[in-house]
Amino acid sequence: MPQQYDLPLEELKKYKPQFTKQNDFDDFWAKSLERLSTVKMEYELTPYDYPVRGIKVYRISHKGFENANIDGWLAVPDGTGPFPGLVIFHGYNWAMEGHLHDVVNWALKGYASLQVLVRGQHGNSEDNVVSSSGFHAGWMTKGIMSPEEYYYRAVYLDAVRAVEVLASMSQVDETRIGVTGNSQGGGIALASAALSNIPAVAIVDYPYLSNFERAIDIVPQGPYLEINEFFRRNGAPEIEEQAKRTLSYFDVMNLAPHIKCHTWISIGLVDEITPPSTVFATYNHLECPKQISVHRYFGHEYIPRTVEPKLKLLMDILQK
Amino acid sequence: MPQQYDLPLEELKKYKPQFTKQNDFDDFWAKSLERLSTVKMEYELTPYDYPVRGIKVYRISHKGFENANIDGWLAVPDGTGPFPGLVIFHGYNWAMEGHLHDVVNWALKGYASLQVLVRGQHGNSEDNVVSSSGFHAGWMTKGIMSPEEYYYRAVYLDAVRAVEVLASMSQVDETRIGVTGNSQGGGIALASAALSNIPAVAIVDYPYLSNFERAIDIVPQGPYLEINEFFRRNGAPEIEEQAKRTLSYFDVMNLAPHIKCHTWISIGLVDEITPPSTVFATYNHLECPKQISVHRYFGHEYIPRTVEPKLKLLMDILQK
Amino acid sequence: MPQQYDLPLEELKKYKPQFTKQNDFDDFWAKSLERLSTVKMEYELTPYDYPVRGIKVYRISHKGFENANIDGWLAVPDGTGPFPGLVIFHGYNWAMEGHLHDVVNWALKGYASLQVLVRGQHGNSEDNVVSSSGFHAGWMTKGIMSPEEYYYRAVYLDAVRAVEVLASMSQVDETRIGVTGNSQGGGIALASAALSNIPAVAIVDYPYLSNFERAIDIVPQGPYLEINEFFRRNGAPEIEEQAKRTLSYFDVMNLAPHIKCHTWISIGLVDEITPPSTVFATYNHLECPKQISVHRYFGHEYIPRTVEPKLKLLMDILQK
Amino acid sequence: MPQQYDLPLEELKKYKPQFTKQNDFDDFWAKSLERLSTVKMEYELTPYDYPVRGIKVYRISHKGFENANIDGWLAVPDGTGPFPGLVIFHGYNWAMEGHLHDVVNWALKGYASLQVLVRGQHGNSEDNVVSSSGFHAGWMTKGIMSPEEYYYRAVYLDAVRAVEVLASMSQVDETRIGVTGNSQGGGIALASAALSNIPAVAIVDYPYLSNFERAIDIVPQGPYLEINEFFRRNGAPEIEEQAKRTLSYFDVMNLAPHIKCHTWISIGLVDEITPPSTVFATYNHLECPKQISVHRYFGHEYIPRTVEPKLKLLMDILQK
Amino acid sequence: MPQQYDLPLEELKKYKPQFTKQNDFDDFWAKSLERLSTVKMEYELTPYDYPVRGIKVYRISHKGFENANIDGWLAVPDGTGPFPGLVIFHGYNWAMEGHLHDVVNWALKGYASLQVLVRGQHGNSEDNVVSSSGFHAGWMTKGIMSPEEYYYRAVYLDAVRAVEVLASMSQVDETRIGVTGNSQGGGIALASAALSNIPAVAIVDYPYLSNFERAIDIVPQGPYLEINEFFRRNGAPEIEEQAKRTLSYFDVMNLAPHIKCHTWISIGLVDEITPPSTVFATYNHLECPKQISVHRYFGHEYIPRTVEPKLKLLMDILQK
Amino acid sequence: MPQQYDLPLEELKKYKPQFTKQNDFDDFWAKSLERLSTVKMEYELTPYDYPVRGIKVYRISHKGFENANIDGWLAVPDGTGPFPGLVIFHGYNWAMEGHLHDVVNWALKGYASLQVLVRGQHGNSEDNVVSSSGFHAGWMTKGIMSPEEYYYRAVYLDAVRAVEVLASMSQVDETRIGVTGNSQGGGIALASAALSNIPAVAIVDYPYLSNFERAIDIVPQGPYLEINEFFRRNGAPEIEEQAKRTLSYFDVMNLAPHIKCHTWISIGLVDEITPPSTVFATYNHLECPKQISVHRYFGHEYIPRTVEPKLKLLMDILQK
Repeated sequence: MPQQYDLPLEELKKYKPQFTKQNDFDDFWAKSLERLSTVKMEYELTPYDYPVRGIKVYRISHKGFENANIDGWLAVPDGTGPFPGLVIFHGYNWAMEGHLHDVVNWALKGYASLQVLVRGQHGNSEDNVVSSSGFHAGWMTKGIMSPEEYYYRAVYLDAVRAVEVLASMSQVDETRIGVTGNSQGGGIALASAALSNIPAVAIVDYPYLSNFERAIDIVPQGPYLEINEFFRRNGAPEIEEQAKRTLSYFDVMNLAPHIKCHTWISIGLVDEITPPSTVFATYNHLECPKQISVHRYFGHEYIPRTVEPKLKLLMDILQK
Repeated sequence: MPQQYDLPLEELKKYKPQFTKQNDFDDFWAKSLERLSTVKMEYELTPYDYPVRGIKVYRISHKGFENANIDGWLAVPDGTGPFPGLVIFHGYNWAMEGHLHDVVNWALKGYASLQVLVRGQHGNSEDNVVSSSGFHAGWMTKGIMSPEEYYYRAVYLDAVRAVEVLASMSQVDETRIGVTGNSQGGGIALASAALSNIPAVAIVDYPYLSNFERAIDIVPQGPYLEINEFFRRNGAPEIEEQAKRTLSYFDVMNLAPHIKCHTWISIGLVDEITPPSTVFATYNHLECPKQISVHRYFGHEYIPRTVEPKLKLLMDILQK
Repeated sequence: MPQQYDLPLEELKKYKPQFTKQNDFDDFWAKSLERLSTVKMEYELTPYDYPVRGIKVYRISHKGFENANIDGWLAVPDGTGPFPGLVIFHGYNWAMEGHLHDVVNWALKGYASLQVLVRGQHGNSEDNVVSSSGFHAGWMTKGIMSPEEYYYRAVYLDAVRAVEVLASMSQVDETRIGVTGNSQGGGIALASAALSNIPAVAIVDYPYLSNFERAIDIVPQGPYLEINEFFRRNGAPEIEEQAKRTLSYFDVMNLAPHIKCHTWISIGLVDEITPPSTVFATYNHLECPKQISVHRYFGHEYIPRTVEPKLKLLMDILQK
Repeated sequence: MPQQYDLPLEELKKYKPQFTKQNDFDDFWAKSLERLSTVKMEYELTPYDYPVRGIKVYRISHKGFENANIDGWLAVPDGTGPFPGLVIFHGYNWAMEGHLHDVVNWALKGYASLQVLVRGQHGNSEDNVVSSSGFHAGWMTKGIMSPEEYYYRAVYLDAVRAVEVLASMSQVDETRIGVTGNSQGGGIALASAALSNIPAVAIVDYPYLSNFERAIDIVPQGPYLEINEFFRRNGAPEIEEQAKRTLSYFDVMNLAPHIKCHTWISIGLVDEITPPSTVFATYNHLECPKQISVHRYFGHEYIPRTVEPKLKLLMDILQK
Repeated sequence: MPQQYDLPLEELKKYKPQFTKQNDFDDFWAKSLERLSTVKMEYELTPYDYPVRGIKVYRISHKGFENANIDGWLAVPDGTGPFPGLVIFHGYNWAMEGHLHDVVNWALKGYASLQVLVRGQHGNSEDNVVSSSGFHAGWMTKGIMSPEEYYYRAVYLDAVRAVEVLASMSQVDETRIGVTGNSQGGGIALASAALSNIPAVAIVDYPYLSNFERAIDIVPQGPYLEINEFFRRNGAPEIEEQAKRTLSYFDVMNLAPHIKCHTWISIGLVDEITPPSTVFATYNHLECPKQISVHRYFGHEYIPRTVEPKLKLLMDILQK
Repeated sequence: MPQQYDLPLEELKKYKPQFTKQNDFDDFWAKSLERLSTVKMEYELTPYDYPVRGIKVYRISHKGFENANIDGWLAVPDGTGPFPGLVIFHGYNWAMEGHLHDVVNWALKGYASLQVLVRGQHGNSEDNVVSSSGFHAGWMTKGIMSPEEYYYRAVYLDAVRAVEVLASMSQVDETRIGVTGNSQGGGIALASAALSNIPAVAIVDYPYLSNFERAIDIVPQGPYLEINEFFRRNGAPEIEEQAKRTLSYFDVMNLAPHIKCHTWISIGLVDEITPPSTVFATYNHLECPKQISVHRYFGHEYIPRTVEPKLKLLMDILQK
């Protein structure tokens, strides 16, 4: 177990770095959402025989950004509903069996739950945006020379669409939808809450994809370092500058003020993958109702004491 | 420095696992080459001002498989030629500044040298084949559910085309072209020698992409383990079976008998990334003139004592 | 991810080491159970306000072996029942918040679920058997110089009692009780199934506490090594002999033939904490209906593909 | 070899954190000593045939706190004495063969030497205080929810009794007794000097159990981290508060002003197990004659250059 | 890849520690050079049949300080010259096959290139100065109790002589000689430029042997730590003092103002073997024309983007 | 703690590799001893004020092979003697403060004890044999191209002389002298017992410098690997052959049959620095009275249970 290496808690609470947005930031996202809107909203369900009672489980696929096929799991309580809904995003390079068993447990708690499989990372979710430049193994630098090609553009827009898909279902109450996830999944959930008006609550653990510039400078391990590795392989200063410019469009910190729903975030103070400061960077820029849950002895991992507050908040907002 | 963990040298020399080819193996490659042939052969040179005398250096781009843009460096001795040529492939996720300085040193030794930047991995070499299934971070499992979509299909075909491009140049003697590379670059070089009649010699260090089934079972570290990680995330036996079937089309061991040119291979006995047995698996299936250079105290790294034999053999075959 | 280091699967399937039981093995356990029977069976429930609907959650404490207080969590479906029951044991030194959230998820699946907190390891479960000899930090060698004092004697007997406590509840159908757990929890679950006639099914992942002698000789990491460390600190051969004699009474392999209920076991082939051979040692000595689920790419960790078979088997046996 | 990670030496010299004592601190210890006094002082010697001349060696056992059996080694110079005496405490979880050979070497230097085996940690020293709460593997959090149950309460009181036992022997001059030890042994030696008037000198290397609050926050490795791990498993803030309250009774820093005899302490500046600041915390609170020996290039290990100063000081005080 | 651990770049640029020179520093080196001058300058060439065209390769041996045999490789462009010359020094304990292949590549770029094999470290370069005191394995503390016996005295003087030898060759233009090397080789190259008037340019990567006092205090790994280890084995303060006094004569920082030729230095900001501050310590004391090339994402390793600036500068100064 | 990686104990007991001696092996050592005999036997004592009673301590220096100054510590019991004597050699690169405190403890047990500081490794023991070839950092390959220059030739001969020096002292009974040491010290002690008739007993722990060829092939860590590293830097097969030829003269296994005195050896079965097989290679070639003490749970470290057998045997043979 590592010790704290980032700012002390008192400074974290005040850590609010300047936005790194380009002038056309809002415009970029407006156009991107417009492009997403050209994709027809449709989904397909295949019943899945899961050995549990009280819910129904389906494989689901729908069309994401640029008409990419996006896979997922859907689990819905028995009954007619409409139920509150939950869209769940998974961590970077990490969705064992698509997190089928987690989505089942969510549905058993009363939520029509949609586990989205991130494009390129699991199931038959296809990553159909081609990067015209080479990148370091992984997804962090795929398309990094251009905001239009950057991997997370499609991922964030897929997330918006996934929320829309769940909201469109008859068993789901579109006014009572939450988004959640940890790490990459937390970052995506926040992005979806910034780019869509549907989510009524966002509940995320140690969100990734925030405050890239600081992450590059201090992160001890994990996928942020793919960016550093990219700069090792491509040492031209103009490449570093352009890449950082691209990242600014996807920095959750820059998207934070766009979030309007209640937002709850957890972070461990010995997290070496999403440093606490990068998480506070986003939190301190939020202008919505918000809470942060800080855990002194935890890193980038399951934090059991976050479960009840999360369930309680979801219940308060979505099951009221 | 690790100790030997693979088979003893005496057994390595006899290690010749059965081919894992599917029945349509040859057909698959014939059709793939046919598809490659539909791509128009063309390239573009941009002079690059490198601070050295006696050679000319260019950025080069050409069209690879499926018309993808493929970048590279070209360095050609001053004079009219025609010069012998060398096509160089780089290691997995490893081409600092595109190995510009190495290609310069090759040209200074008399070769019109083309450093190919592998699609998706460096420069503006674009990886434009979309995988309809998710994969583990990296390229080893991209498209692994289908031979048509597997990442290395396009890479091998790009390699064939790169050899053709160099052969097409006026300053180059198309009958005196060699292919070379280490690790992933070694595997690609061998694949290009199997799939093209142009190469007159193949000189590769610790080639990758060979004898996948054994690699999966014994490799202590490195990118082969992406396959194991994929099987962890996707535990259905039918997925493992189908993925291994796909890999069989790209196993350099299965391509080995297609190589007709003189082939020289080196391997270190404490190599933990491309285990010696996987390299001997290919070597022992070669039916061309061949040599293997074995290094007891070396792993997956630069082996200085391979340099002179390689230069000598290139000189004998390409500069005779 | 490590590679396989234990016997090949074909040998594992046949690996059946000789029992190491002392002559008075059965007698020892008969007397121990007799002593347990002198503890009055009683328990106390404290309602716990968990933010979920459809179940009731309680803190529970009861008297274990030697009247020790044993804590746990109990979660029961709403309704009158009687419900099938599940007794759950946790891993060695590992029960974050007492695994409250897991027991909730079990109850949501229809089981009256009792998560036992192992004595000395969590909550207010008190370890009240004094060891008259010193030991290595941890519990593996506590009381190791005498079967009467050995730590796991009380733990196994506590487990028997926990099963009895659950069976005694009015909402629970005593004929439909399962025991489960992973690692230490798996070993304890098996012991409880050997020492009690109540369990109708045992479902365990990579059980610990089996085939100590081989574990001592091959285990690369984890708590089995506490025994090796004890032998380093206490080098007298007679101490090693006496300690191993003590361990023989608690070796799940020796208890295996006593299990009569259906038993299901999972194991990963790269498990470095409970080596596959030690698990097969127990499995191959089982004389009850049995299944083993083998996972090539998994170690001592959550194996997602075991979840459905486990739920299915529980459903078949306990919810028929 | 690590580099310095704690405060610079100049700051260490001034580092004097506030006491963390509760109001009833003195009362707690007074009552505890009173309770100890109810244990009858008696010991038993068993001659041990050690292959050396000039001394006699015995296994010794006596009654410690709560009448627990406490084992040890006693080595006494040949002759009638009375000799100066030395009570030696060992490190945490570390007493290979009970440090028999060290006690022999001490006796050869003229001291009637008693190596105490810490309860629960070695020999037949029994740890007979039951903790009514669970704890992390090891002893650091055993009984941590209550000062009366905390493991080190009994250990410190055992230490006081061990000193009394040695002082009671006819061959020993009770006015010339020293206490010594390193790490845990150093902390215990200091505690014994604070709680007993017998010791004439305390000589300790890198003492443990000091300034817990800082240790928890900065220690890179070692048993202090058991406390952090306990807080991970038990995340309720009130548990952390209560546990820290308990620790305050056993923090050697809080006991420091009670020490009246000459005290000598060593510390290495790259010690990662007992950080230098935690040692200076105690040292700077000492009000007795004192010296500290600082070693720039040493960690938590044998520091050869401390040997002569220690022997010299013992000689000056105990053999004058 | 580690993160920055040394001073921030802004502070590095100003970091200029006080000289640690003794009063007789200049005198010491004057006398040492005088003693070197008594060694007869002579060398012997043995042609080596290297498989490349356009250059000639030789094994070379000459007499170094105290008449020690010093080996090396010499590679000279075909033709009559006179050519510019380059003297190349290698890293500590690191000269695979004497770096034969690198010297070939230098000669192909137009330089008569002499790769010096450092005494005791490779080939038949003999280290014939006896240390009258013991030392830690390696060379960093060999002779450390006396400036006259310190290992690097002979090494620096050998370097001066190697430069003189190259300058004396008829094919070489003595006014156009550069010195180069990385790590230890960089330190030696700088020393040779300080102690000889011949070099027209010094081009060094992450030079070693600079600002010893800071290195001892902060270096995380590498051969500087041999000094720390020596102080562990020899703990007397007067030994540490005398050793540091010896080192002051060989600290490249102290020699820096003696360098008159154009000097170019590179350093990576995550270099853990030659910390950036130790390199800036020398750089900021240089009084000659100078440049420093700083690389944020690189450690102690090949930095591809340094190649062109180095070649360009050499071309500008030596091939003008 | 590692697990066993070498041969099983049953095979170790029979492991007796063929001698690797050259024809002139005996001749080489006869001539070497003859050359040693030309060094005048003399020594100088400087009293050292050690804070202990009952013995006298001195710094001692004498002339070793080639008249090198060899330092050491001498500790002698008070009284007139003659006392039995003990010559002690230390481990490779490891003699903190020259092991002063250990020699004191030996003297307190009745032995006139001479701790030899190995040339080049500690104190003012000078290594005055020059190697005409370069070597890897450390001493294992110093002079490895020639038996006359190999580092351990002088070390072994120094050891013979040290034994002679102790035997020559008036307080010492020359017929009752033992040699001892661990690791490198164990190898040297055995060599001294093979090359000198003086030792009456040799008592060594996990001796080094034995069965080099196997060590090179299996050793996981430690100084044997310097040889492997040398072969990496110098890849010519003829260098490997010549180096191994040199090593054969110093392989303690080859010297084993020359030992006539009682020899006692210990070894741990998880020793990763001097693999058990290399130690049995020597042991099984011993033709003298011999014992081996095998420790299952110990590596290359202090093994407490060897102390009493060693003291007992020394007492039986030297103090009878």
